[in-house]
Amino acid sequence: MDHLLDDLETKEIDVTSISSSKRHRQKLPYKVGVAPKQNLFEEITSTVKETFFADDPLRHFKDQPKSRKLVLGIQAVFPILEWARDYNLTKFKGDLVAGLTIASLCIPQDIGYSKLANLAPQYGLYSSFVPPLVYAFMGSSRDIAIGPVAVVSLLLGTLLQNEIDAAKHPVEYTRLAFTATFFAGITQFTLGFFRLGFLIDFLSHAAIVGFMAGAAITIALQQLKGFLGIKNFTKKTDIVSVMRSVFSSAHHGWNWQTILIGASFLAFLLVAKYIGKKNKKLFWVPAIAPLISVVLSTFFVYITHAEKDGVAIVRHIDKGINPSSVHKIYFSGDYLLKGFRIGVVAGMIALTEAVAIGRTFASMKDYQIDGNKEMVALGTMNIVGSMTSCYVATGSFSRSAVNYMAGCHTAVSNIVMSCVVLLTLELITPLFKYTPNAILSSIIISAVIGLIDVESAVLLWKIDKFDFVACMGAFFGVVFDSVEIGLLIAVCISFAKILLQVTRPRIALLGKLPRTSVYRNIQQYPEATKVPGILIVRVDSAIYFSNSNYVRERILRWLADEEEQKKESYIQKIQYLIVDMSPVTDIDTSGIHALEELYRSLQKREVELALANPGQTVIDKLQASKFHNLIGEDKIFLTVQDAVLTLNPKSVVEEAC
Amino acid sequence: MDHLLDDLETKEIDVTSISSSKRHRQKLPYKVGVAPKQNLFEEITSTVKETFFADDPLRHFKDQPKSRKLVLGIQAVFPILEWARDYNLTKFKGDLVAGLTIASLCIPQDIGYSKLANLAPQYGLYSSFVPPLVYAFMGSSRDIAIGPVAVVSLLLGTLLQNEIDAAKHPVEYTRLAFTATFFAGITQFTLGFFRLGFLIDFLSHAAIVGFMAGAAITIALQQLKGFLGIKNFTKKTDIVSVMRSVFSSAHHGWNWQTILIGASFLAFLLVAKYIGKKNKKLFWVPAIAPLISVVLSTFFVYITHAEKDGVAIVRHIDKGINPSSVHKIYFSGDYLLKGFRIGVVAGMIALTEAVAIGRTFASMKDYQIDGNKEMVALGTMNIVGSMTSCYVATGSFSRSAVNYMAGCHTAVSNIVMSCVVLLTLELITPLFKYTPNAILSSIIISAVIGLIDVESAVLLWKIDKFDFVACMGAFFGVVFDSVEIGLLIAVCISFAKILLQVTRPRIALLGKLPRTSVYRNIQQYPEATKVPGILIVRVDSAIYFSNSNYVRERILRWLADEEEQKKESYIQKIQYLIVDMSPVTDIDTSGIHALEELYRSLQKREVELALANPGQTVIDKLQASKFHNLIGEDKIFLTVQDAVLTLNPKSVVEEAC
Repeated sequence: MDHLLDDLETKEIDVTSISSSKRHRQKLPYKVGVAPKQNLFEEITSTVKETFFADDPLRHFKDQPKSRKLVLGIQAVFPILEWARDYNLTKFKGDLVAGLTIASLCIPQDIGYSKLANLAPQYGLYSSFVPPLVYAFMGSSRDIAIGPVAVVSLLLGTLLQNEIDAAKHPVEYTRLAFTATFFAGITQFTLGFFRLGFLIDFLSHAAIVGFMAGAAITIALQQLKGFLGIKNFTKKTDIVSVMRSVFSSAHHGWNWQTILIGASFLAFLLVAKYIGKKNKKLFWVPAIAPLISVVLSTFFVYITHAEKDGVAIVRHIDKGINPSSVHKIYFSGDYLLKGFRIGVVAGMIALTEAVAIGRTFASMKDYQIDGNKEMVALGTMNIVGSMTSCYVATGSFSRSAVNYMAGCHTAVSNIVMSCVVLLTLELITPLFKYTPNAILSSIIISAVIGLIDVESAVLLWKIDKFDFVACMGAFFGVVFDSVEIGLLIAVCISFAKILLQVTRPRIALLGKLPRTSVYRNIQQYPEATKVPGILIVRVDSAIYFSNSNYVRERILRWLADEEEQKKESYIQKIQYLIVDMSPVTDIDTSGIHALEELYRSLQKREVELALANPGQTVIDKLQASKFHNLIGEDKIFLTVQDAVLTLNPKSVVEEAC
Repeated sequence: MDHLLDDLETKEIDVTSISSSKRHRQKLPYKVGVAPKQNLFEEITSTVKETFFADDPLRHFKDQPKSRKLVLGIQAVFPILEWARDYNLTKFKGDLVAGLTIASLCIPQDIGYSKLANLAPQYGLYSSFVPPLVYAFMGSSRDIAIGPVAVVSLLLGTLLQNEIDAAKHPVEYTRLAFTATFFAGITQFTLGFFRLGFLIDFLSHAAIVGFMAGAAITIALQQLKGFLGIKNFTKKTDIVSVMRSVFSSAHHGWNWQTILIGASFLAFLLVAKYIGKKNKKLFWVPAIAPLISVVLSTFFVYITHAEKDGVAIVRHIDKGINPSSVHKIYFSGDYLLKGFRIGVVAGMIALTEAVAIGRTFASMKDYQIDGNKEMVALGTMNIVGSMTSCYVATGSFSRSAVNYMAGCHTAVSNIVMSCVVLLTLELITPLFKYTPNAILSSIIISAVIGLIDVESAVLLWKIDKFDFVACMGAFFGVVFDSVEIGLLIAVCISFAKILLQVTRPRIALLGKLPRTSVYRNIQQYPEATKVPGILIVRVDSAIYFSNSNYVRERILRWLADEEEQKKESYIQKIQYLIVDMSPVTDIDTSGIHALEELYRSLQKREVELALANPGQTVIDKLQASKFHNLIGEDKIFLTVQDAVLTLNPKSVVEEAC
């Protein structure tokens, strides 16, 4: 059987060898293909489709009767109508357990995060009531847990504080918070509706890792106020100001009772977290630990009347469900613009988190979610929230992970959580009166420690140094200056990376791997040998205005370097320059202009130019610009090997001898 | 001889056939190459070198004694020291003629362009005196003609007018103009010094064509004031406002004498231009026509006392050379920031023109110029100019073309022009007293008509529709709104193009060209056939955070589409997915993450993943991230053919039968 296979293969290759030996003496059987030209409308349609509708969301709408299309349309906007039909008791059990678990986690966190945002505690609870309900109706992710999150609360708190002092003008501050939330929702909705979701991708993962870690450090530092019982605390967030506050008040003495409460429960929480990490089955331990801590510490303070000893407590949380806040949003005036700007930034950061969470869990459970649809859901959720006294809510990584491990099946877990929060708001809030602030600080510190992803940072260092620089830039920007500056640095470094790749593409010198017809980069393959008398370069990028000059100059410089070397060793002068256009996905007028100038410069040096393997778009444009007339149609080849065999057959023969 | 060649070639290919038939049964002789890893410092150094020092400017500094290096260094800053040594009488003759020709052209233009910038006429002449002298010492282009230009004058005039009304506060206006010029020079110097010149490349040629044409139309419309003798004219520049002004003053009657003078001389100038175009030898005709028109019309107005009939005249130009203006520059206060912003914009536009001119003529005469060094020279020129009562000067395309055709050899032509302007300032300015404004308007109109490059626009339409849209966007933005908006549109469209290319790279389906081992895009090569049981895709871009999600989803969608088709026709199910990584120049952590997710998704569908021809950087990163452990080292191949032969040899055999 083997020898039969041999024969067949030798036969196949003999066919190849015959045709290829004939090939370069006759016409090459394969010329560079020119696809039938699309008309302009088709071209625009396909570009728009690929850019905005890349995931073909209307796929299942095809070939359906009109009534069905209507139903599908409504289902697309309210996915709950789709999965609610397959709902059963098993799923409900899973969702109930998961919902209760994340509720126990979110209630103390909500009260703490409201403080981060400089808002009264009930607003955090409000934001865990209405937004998850809206999301359950419109969202597609089955595992995400909605509510206020640490980083967005910090961001909102910092940006709002820059405009209005929360202590002096609490009413205006709250109003501005609702305005910002409204515009955050508008931003998210608009991005999703116009399918501009890909803009979120422009914040690189590396930058986000750095930004989140920096935000986590900043949040932890902010908690030192509650943790140490300091009365006068800086309004700034950078590490230097915070440390100065901390150590200057050491002079007055920190409140040891507060520190005791805070430290002991922090230790408890960290141990619970560790247990949960080590044994996946005990995931519920770190989930209910915060609530237990709150209950215990409240009881303890109540018993010992520790608030008289200087332990700051929550004191009062408004009872009852969310009041309407439509009238509180600024729809005109100075604050409108400020709210808009803050809302856009907060909305986009919130989106980044939620979309990342949605994608992660969808990939783990192997279902698809439409990023743009998610954005519409999140946007609607925040718009409705802004009208019901909520501030920006989004998906929380830690709570979503708990949700997932507690066995959620659908977004009903969010509905369950909402109901528990409702109960809390109606009945339980008076019990929080004696809850010490220190415990909230401990809960927040233990929560954000999970945001510091050292493993990812190490991986970044190992794989891609530039990514690591982006990560560190964002991190230090947040820690040493402010959240906005860190974010700006993150975005700028992300863009700089793209621009760098675009401006300085690689131009590789190719050599032939002996005894094959394969040409590879001689830096990567030292065994590849240069072809005598021919210089082969490969341009590893589309040739646009942003790099056309560089491409031309670099190729000429390669030529000059090679000729200098050859002069010294009396090897055959270079007569041909082949440009391998395989990776050149596109070319514009500047690129064609650069090729024309290259052609002329080469002519002055008596070197002939040839192109190998231009893609479809490129060959179209070369023909439209008449460049291929300039260079000669016989100088455009299918492969580099064809070019070498045609231009300088002797070089190949010499190698064989 | 032929049959000998045949034998040799068959022998060579037999060697190939034997080794390739052995190849896939034994170990492939060529594995994917992994270049020796550069240490971090080398990596950074080479990236910085390629980005900022791409043209290797310090090349001739190598292996030189210290004294020589010092001399070379000074020569680099003042190139005049280099070419002045080879100066001789022949060159001087050419430069003298060229200098006189461009002087005759520039004097009337200077007076006109000052008006565009809303400055008194002498400032234009000042800007043709000092800046060209500075440039002659520091610049590298031999053909460029320095002085005020239409577009930059318009830009400056518009931007300054937005801040200060030139009619009401001429002193502050002039001071702000000097401030802007100072910062324009600082911007240009900084960009050149830090070798950030590649930033200029980001304004695409297409956008510049549109912007220049729009600016030309705007300038021509502005001239209607002088041309028609209108007294009340709009301060806005867009076409609607201007037309409204023109037709509302038609009611009052345009000044027929002005129109007569203007129209007749405009006709004369256009005829002269046409003559110069038709017969290259008569290039001097359109060059001296403006000066002749000025002389004739001044004489005519003097004789007929036409100014008493309402013909507006220049009236007065300050006599004498440039006064110092260091004390006039705003170094503090509100205007500092405004001057800075205007200066940066004007400086960069001026740079774009000058660098384009420098490159064009250098390429025509086949000498090299260092773009960054040019920027340093232009920056110094404008800084010195701002201190000697000049406003932003740069290279003028029309004057440089005249300079070139008049036979200039070096920048001495600029020195000659400066001297003539000096004489004019000292002696001739009183003679301009009776020059009608209409003639200046005619000169400007005839000058800017050359900026409207219809041919380029048509070429853009034919070659690259996106480029054409950019061109039109910039054009209409300038004409219908303002210069700043047109510029902003130009920059935004240029960036959008880069971002689009980065976000939605092409993923091509590959098929095998029968009887070869070449795999090509099946859309471009309809004869390429898909390999049964294997899906081969090629990613035509680096895989970064900006497109990694899209790449993954698109590949999965290709797979889903193929499987749907195969289901219907009962062909062999797809078992392997080969990703051709040839054009993937780089990959970052997001890209690797996307590959990992792709691998897992494929595993769930029982499809195996293989990679073909990953580049050097990519294979380094894959190894650092342990992805190649995940996928298996035996799944990374040198070429697509190797992958196909190894994974599914039968598919190749079937084809041969």
